[in-house]
Amino acid sequence: MKPKILLQLDADKHPSAFDAVVAIDAGVDHLLSHGAVEPEEVESLVHGAIFTRGPSDLKSTAIFIGGHSVARGEELLANVTKTFFGPMRTSVMLDSNGANTTAAAAVIAAGRHLDFEHTRSLVLGGTGPVGQRVALLLARQGAKVELASRSVDRAADACAALVAKQQGAAVEPLAFGPGAKLEAQYDLIVAAGAAGAQLISKEQLGAQNYLHVVVDLNAVPPAGIEGIDPMDAGREESSLVHYGAIGVGGIKMKIHKAAIARLFESNDQVFDAAEIHDLGLRLEAE
Amino acid sequence: MKPKILLQLDADKHPSAFDAVVAIDAGVDHLLSHGAVEPEEVESLVHGAIFTRGPSDLKSTAIFIGGHSVARGEELLANVTKTFFGPMRTSVMLDSNGANTTAAAAVIAAGRHLDFEHTRSLVLGGTGPVGQRVALLLARQGAKVELASRSVDRAADACAALVAKQQGAAVEPLAFGPGAKLEAQYDLIVAAGAAGAQLISKEQLGAQNYLHVVVDLNAVPPAGIEGIDPMDAGREESSLVHYGAIGVGGIKMKIHKAAIARLFESNDQVFDAAEIHDLGLRLEAE
Amino acid sequence: MKPKILLQLDADKHPSAFDAVVAIDAGVDHLLSHGAVEPEEVESLVHGAIFTRGPSDLKSTAIFIGGHSVARGEELLANVTKTFFGPMRTSVMLDSNGANTTAAAAVIAAGRHLDFEHTRSLVLGGTGPVGQRVALLLARQGAKVELASRSVDRAADACAALVAKQQGAAVEPLAFGPGAKLEAQYDLIVAAGAAGAQLISKEQLGAQNYLHVVVDLNAVPPAGIEGIDPMDAGREESSLVHYGAIGVGGIKMKIHKAAIARLFESNDQVFDAAEIHDLGLRLEAE
Repeated sequence: MKPKILLQLDADKHPSAFDAVVAIDAGVDHLLSHGAVEPEEVESLVHGAIFTRGPSDLKSTAIFIGGHSVARGEELLANVTKTFFGPMRTSVMLDSNGANTTAAAAVIAAGRHLDFEHTRSLVLGGTGPVGQRVALLLARQGAKVELASRSVDRAADACAALVAKQQGAAVEPLAFGPGAKLEAQYDLIVAAGAAGAQLISKEQLGAQNYLHVVVDLNAVPPAGIEGIDPMDAGREESSLVHYGAIGVGGIKMKIHKAAIARLFESNDQVFDAAEIHDLGLRLEAE
Repeated sequence: MKPKILLQLDADKHPSAFDAVVAIDAGVDHLLSHGAVEPEEVESLVHGAIFTRGPSDLKSTAIFIGGHSVARGEELLANVTKTFFGPMRTSVMLDSNGANTTAAAAVIAAGRHLDFEHTRSLVLGGTGPVGQRVALLLARQGAKVELASRSVDRAADACAALVAKQQGAAVEPLAFGPGAKLEAQYDLIVAAGAAGAQLISKEQLGAQNYLHVVVDLNAVPPAGIEGIDPMDAGREESSLVHYGAIGVGGIKMKIHKAAIARLFESNDQVFDAAEIHDLGLRLEAE
Repeated sequence: MKPKILLQLDADKHPSAFDAVVAIDAGVDHLLSHGAVEPEEVESLVHGAIFTRGPSDLKSTAIFIGGHSVARGEELLANVTKTFFGPMRTSVMLDSNGANTTAAAAVIAAGRHLDFEHTRSLVLGGTGPVGQRVALLLARQGAKVELASRSVDRAADACAALVAKQQGAAVEPLAFGPGAKLEAQYDLIVAAGAAGAQLISKEQLGAQNYLHVVVDLNAVPPAGIEGIDPMDAGREESSLVHYGAIGVGGIKMKIHKAAIARLFESNDQVFDAAEIHDLGLRLEAE
């Protein structure tokens, strides 16, 4: 077997040291790290990955896409897969800003305590890249989802984009901002907003009679959901289960590392939100 | 034995992933990849290569020069070798744009079917970096070479440069462009022009009574020589042997990989066109 | 044990190939090399180093800071250590421009021939980063130090900075420039000035009745101290022991390599001048 080579394409000036260390710990032998990668530079780099080993050896080469901007990462991914043809391809994973592994970990954490087929969920900060992914992954497991944003128009756009990916998804937009109060009852609330911004206070939560799990993906105080500590990892208080960003981080890291390792099992995998979520579910079942 | 370290000096923003993967598959343990390398930055990088290991260990360090511009690669190579002194040196290979390995592979492919001592050859696109190298390698094996360009002046300049490197070379300039027809008879025609440009049509070829091998190094349609497919690798049609860019690529890759491995056999080798050609010939003989 | 990962943070455009090769030869398994690192970019890179492995594995990750500017390296080091918290830290080494390992090697070379408790020393070029470090390391071993510069004000500032680091240090400023003559008697003179500049001639030295060791850290002719050859490594002439830059370089390299290896023994070490000096002293005692 050829040495495992991971081509790290990062949109930021410095390719992520986080992603690099995880790759090494997942068994990568050689990292080829590139920073400040522009979409039009992808083709030449991918050619280097696919034209240097025979098709039967291409499973020992893989591509990882990172960087802070998820939108930019999606552009890079599109150009990577566009460059592939026939058997001349490698497996590729998108995890810009950790969005896919974080969303998968959040949904998997919540799933330890809920039957999603009978779950009414609310995703705060639902129009951001992590929020959209959390909503998608909840919907594909059968949960009812309300996707919240200050702007109901942006929430509706995100819902439409989600349904385009997951036909029949039970997802509805909700306008929710400072001063608003929840009017419906939820089993699960996930906050996927910006770092250091409270999305909902205890007062805004109001009387939630069925609320069973709260997940907050913001590690920087104040918490996105008042009362959650970043270290919470299933902490129960008055029968409410709490997960914070660092608490979810352990699951995220396990999924991230496993995903890198799986890239090298064949040369035809594309790991985006759904595939990473599926992998996380398999890890849960092991 | 110390780990094998290859210092990859690439003139392009992103050091070539192609060159990196080949290096790893040739047994390099650690790649130190640098992009956007300017000629004046070479000295400090080479100092890092030569001042860190004793002379007897310097064969475990080597330098590879790449990037799209062959002219820029030649500048980098000149500055690399200028920095060496006495035993404080490492082996170094130039293969900007794959020009050296491609030219060697083309000549070796043709040599499978021809006795160069009795070969009249024509190199189309002969003033470009690959074309000049193909002409040089043919001449040093004793072939008669006509080096063609739209501009006879540029062709004459390239011939003069070639003779300066290979005294007594039998090389003549030829003006040849769209609308022209070949007036002489050749055993071998090699096209080394820009990607996606036809250099000669069947009609322009005219009646070639002795033509035995045609090689086209352009992988992007239309072919440089009408009738060649990029995948051709010795395909015979009406006793004419065809090689296309991808067909030659297999030989090129074998030479490239072997050259990287040989760099680590001593610390005093400079692999430019002729040395890489010699290595290719030895591989053929094995 | 996890693979040894060294995060190389270099302030220059190209991360030092010198530092990279030494790291590999010191046993580092994977180098993550970053060039043109700005102080404000450090936090994110350090987060990648500290949040990817559990505290008990963090000794297998370390950080190296390099680049030509020692002042910039000190800024990077400050930001690295500021990012650490509790057990979430790695060992880190500063050796911008080789200043710490060079200063330690110079003082260790001199110490082979002197009892620092009874040594009157003069550091020429004492306000530069290497000179300041040489003076500090001499003082911490009990030598009397005169720190010389053309500007007595800058020399006084450097002395004050030194005493702030090493309380009770016996260090005095001295104005010394072209045309001046030494008026005191010294046992040791170290020149740590810019490359290619003579700091003191034989005539300026005058009659030195006790002078036993001279060390010149400039490798580019003319020598900083007239009469020293860069290759000098303890050469005795008229009972005066000479060390030149390359002669000291062997000790420097040994210390540098050992320091990198020691980084991976625990996750809480900060290797700056004093710690690297201590390591060099332990190597001498072995």
